[in-house]
Amino acid sequence: MDTLKGKKVAFQGEHGAYSEIAATSFFPDSELIPMRLFQDIFDALRNDSIDCAVVPIENSIEGSVNEIYDLLLDADKKITGEMFLKIEHCLIALPNSTTITKVFSHPQALAQCRNYIKRKNLDAIPTYDTAGSVRLIKEKKINDTAAIASKNAAEFYGMKILDQNIEDRKNNFTRFLVLSDQQTAPSKSDRTSMIFGLKHTPGSLYSVMKEFDHHKINLTKIESRPTKEKPWEYNFYVDFEGHIEEDSVKRAIKNVESKCTFVKILGSYERGTIN
Amino acid sequence: MDTLKGKKVAFQGEHGAYSEIAATSFFPDSELIPMRLFQDIFDALRNDSIDCAVVPIENSIEGSVNEIYDLLLDADKKITGEMFLKIEHCLIALPNSTTITKVFSHPQALAQCRNYIKRKNLDAIPTYDTAGSVRLIKEKKINDTAAIASKNAAEFYGMKILDQNIEDRKNNFTRFLVLSDQQTAPSKSDRTSMIFGLKHTPGSLYSVMKEFDHHKINLTKIESRPTKEKPWEYNFYVDFEGHIEEDSVKRAIKNVESKCTFVKILGSYERGTIN
Repeated sequence: MDTLKGKKVAFQGEHGAYSEIAATSFFPDSELIPMRLFQDIFDALRNDSIDCAVVPIENSIEGSVNEIYDLLLDADKKITGEMFLKIEHCLIALPNSTTITKVFSHPQALAQCRNYIKRKNLDAIPTYDTAGSVRLIKEKKINDTAAIASKNAAEFYGMKILDQNIEDRKNNFTRFLVLSDQQTAPSKSDRTSMIFGLKHTPGSLYSVMKEFDHHKINLTKIESRPTKEKPWEYNFYVDFEGHIEEDSVKRAIKNVESKCTFVKILGSYERGTIN
Repeated sequence: MDTLKGKKVAFQGEHGAYSEIAATSFFPDSELIPMRLFQDIFDALRNDSIDCAVVPIENSIEGSVNEIYDLLLDADKKITGEMFLKIEHCLIALPNSTTITKVFSHPQALAQCRNYIKRKNLDAIPTYDTAGSVRLIKEKKINDTAAIASKNAAEFYGMKILDQNIEDRKNNFTRFLVLSDQQTAPSKSDRTSMIFGLKHTPGSLYSVMKEFDHHKINLTKIESRPTKEKPWEYNFYVDFEGHIEEDSVKRAIKNVESKCTFVKILGSYERGTIN
């Protein structure tokens, strides 16, 4: 991804957000641009005011990020990369904090540290954002409150880390996707993501899966989202091993297309590794 | 469900919540008990301090309620009923309100009225709850702010309805499930919900779906949720037409069991109708 050196890469959240850590590790030499909403990122990709974006697609404990699935349906860029980030939460406060009685963070981060918060007898207060909670405590000089966020957020705002790895479950990973208009050549370890709509007949999902099985294509994920057009009709999102330029994948997609109302290939990309 | 007359039925939220409207229409003569969290409801079902609960499982626009899926995994009661409620949002204010410049509601309700809010040039402020926003405006006597909530919430708190049916999309329905330990005999129109875990081999999901297809059982929904035990392993939730006491369903389940790490039948129940 050398061609992205010095280019603009967007992420959702504030400086110190887990999305920024993912973006930095993928594009160490790029200009990182924080954006408030996922929608802002997809708008910026569409009008080419950024070159690329890094967005979370699923967490190993919380599951899929539904909003990203919905936005991918109309996205005009491809998925061109994937990475997995281990989520390690810190308890962060002002350098001169007093006794901590309250803790701010995003509801998901609070949920992921529930046992720790209970053990320390803290009052959990949900906020908009993990890194944003650190900023809030710094700006308002709140002495009796800590935030749960990344180590990077503490460093960015010059705050003190009171405790590390406070998450209840250690197998906490988030999978991030890279969106851009780069071309990705097949590697030896690729994944392809696609969306399809089913004809409204019994067994139609099964008939699609049969095509993948017939071509020995291994599905790694299946997810459904409401079409929003007609109640209780869904679009299906699948990930599978292989690259769209491989013959067996091409043949499978061709057969799948004949059984669907539409097919959209989101991209083929090298699979990320879990460190 | 006559045996539930006068019994305790729990719902999540405050009086006037859409869940309360669903519970009332299903159990008109029961004592309705508001509870703050979904977790509280499942705890109360477990210790038998309530007889029954009505919970939302999916919305036709927003998709599944992930937390309910996760709680069903460990639930000790069965799904014994289903209903669909049309979601009709109202703009609600104090009877003596001044010019409205702000609007409070749950983020999902705000999202569902996005065009309306934009057209009226209101400042959208996310809160914990729809009906709770009505209560907040009443209690704090906030003159310049309206809430988005149900007609019932306006009536319960004696507030004024400024506008009705303000949702952007009219096909907005929520599907609710009834949880209890009642027995449900087969009707002519049943649905069964179950969870299963897959062996970690390629094509294992396909082999399960093949069994349903072989027994001519029509799947109406498939959903995956992280196991939370091991990253990127999922439990699958399926709904299909038929009752667990029917022979073809029994045979299919028996074969599915041999291909899974576990199978949990969540219940068979008469399908709800969309009014």
